[in-house]
Amino acid sequence: MTKIPDWIAVDWGTTHLRAWLMTQAGDMIERRNSDQGMGGLARDQFAPILTELLSDVISDVPLPVIICGMAGSRQGWAEAPYVAVPCAPPGGNLATPVVADPLSVRILPGVKQVKPADVMRGEETQIAGFLASDPDFDGILCLPGTHNKWVHISAGEIVSFRTFMTGELFALLADQSVLRHSVDTRDWDEDAFRDALSDTLSRPADLAAKLFSLRAEGLLNDLSAAAARARLSALLIGAELAAAKPYWLGQQVVILGEGSVARAYEAALNLQGAMVRCVDAENMTLAGLTAAYMQWKEPKA
Amino acid sequence: MTKIPDWIAVDWGTTHLRAWLMTQAGDMIERRNSDQGMGGLARDQFAPILTELLSDVISDVPLPVIICGMAGSRQGWAEAPYVAVPCAPPGGNLATPVVADPLSVRILPGVKQVKPADVMRGEETQIAGFLASDPDFDGILCLPGTHNKWVHISAGEIVSFRTFMTGELFALLADQSVLRHSVDTRDWDEDAFRDALSDTLSRPADLAAKLFSLRAEGLLNDLSAAAARARLSALLIGAELAAAKPYWLGQQVVILGEGSVARAYEAALNLQGAMVRCVDAENMTLAGLTAAYMQWKEPKA
Repeated sequence: MTKIPDWIAVDWGTTHLRAWLMTQAGDMIERRNSDQGMGGLARDQFAPILTELLSDVISDVPLPVIICGMAGSRQGWAEAPYVAVPCAPPGGNLATPVVADPLSVRILPGVKQVKPADVMRGEETQIAGFLASDPDFDGILCLPGTHNKWVHISAGEIVSFRTFMTGELFALLADQSVLRHSVDTRDWDEDAFRDALSDTLSRPADLAAKLFSLRAEGLLNDLSAAAARARLSALLIGAELAAAKPYWLGQQVVILGEGSVARAYEAALNLQGAMVRCVDAENMTLAGLTAAYMQWKEPKA
Repeated sequence: MTKIPDWIAVDWGTTHLRAWLMTQAGDMIERRNSDQGMGGLARDQFAPILTELLSDVISDVPLPVIICGMAGSRQGWAEAPYVAVPCAPPGGNLATPVVADPLSVRILPGVKQVKPADVMRGEETQIAGFLASDPDFDGILCLPGTHNKWVHISAGEIVSFRTFMTGELFALLADQSVLRHSVDTRDWDEDAFRDALSDTLSRPADLAAKLFSLRAEGLLNDLSAAAARARLSALLIGAELAAAKPYWLGQQVVILGEGSVARAYEAALNLQGAMVRCVDAENMTLAGLTAAYMQWKEPKA
């Protein structure tokens, strides 16, 4: 039988729902997953899905739940209004309460930047988790994902940030464009990645032409799928690095990420001579939710 | 009753099939359309679809049919091998014969460029049509479409060309990405197009970041869908113009195109001070197929 948790940490994004059963001391009892992301849900579906996911640990005692991610967007469960930069990652005291008896739910706000216009939801909680263990960090966080973020952190605050659609562009091009025939593999050609990255950083404007050449080189020169896939990634990451140069050049960069995407960014930044280290993003999300819970339940005087 | 044609001109692309019923003198009797593009067809479906489309004009006499487009690709009806640049647009004498009694079918080759690797299929026939009426043209042809082409023409030959995936990127981003919510309109904001184009041409590397800002500006600053759609188009066309500058700067440019896409390219090039005129692409396709037929049936000595 599952040990009864003291509270629940939830990351509810567009395509996923993750819940962690937690003790008061901040230890994790169990992790639960669902593919019921907010993207496919109507407003009145959130509470039933969450109570179903937690049915075996719900009792008459109100169970605190703290949520980050797109569930707090206007199209989500309830809108948790953005906090504007510069700001510390918003904590539990700024979370929006929603009714879901016997759950006592709070949804964390996202962060916005007015100029250039930009928004994040979910990443601010990873940042809070990172700052919980490294409160004096001064530098750049890179958060790879569908919509990659570059975030300037100083004195415990998010100073500015910039979002790139690189991850979504890669998925659209690799899965749905004419290039899908050319990159249909899970293999990876590291040399092709390196060469294309360097080429793109020296001439970043050629992107749309270099994309089609992946197809043409497959037809005419037998370019392998592994090389084409690595080059596609390098073209898109290279264009991003060129545009994000003011963020990473000469800076201390920490990548909050996982898996092959985080490794591709690490490799790309290393090739440019940047100082990089990687931190597991999911651990940071959980640490951020824990910090938010502590702030909610045990606010400082 | 339809007048019996002497021959049939066909443009068979990935998503469409167009057939024109023609007289020996090159006059058009009738135009027929189908959505049975080669993209959805197996090799043995081409002949039945074409004979069905022409069933009322087929007799015992062999009817000549000349085809351009993706039907001649490796995944199409029969591969019509590429001709390499520099070359004149390949004519009927280089077409690949296929059996489809009582039709006498020939498929025109595409054109390839080894370095940088590039290919075209269908556009070479539009170019042939353009050169049929302007054989001394020396300059640049711009052919907007899913995969836009810039083509350098001199002394009746295709000297070099470059393909940009701009049209396909626009469709993927406008219809399937997170931006689809932000650009969901048929309206158009000309001022937004002009401003974003000029901004992109001065800093073409920022594309992936500026794309996401369309979403963020909709959320934070009530950017209208008409302005967002025009800016999305300007961002992509601007990045293409920046990369294609060696093609159009100080050159005589003719756009072979139709509709709103051709007008967007014309507006964009005019804003950059380029000398541009527009020519209807479909008329050029038919003129190119006619020239190929004449060359097939009445070869010069």
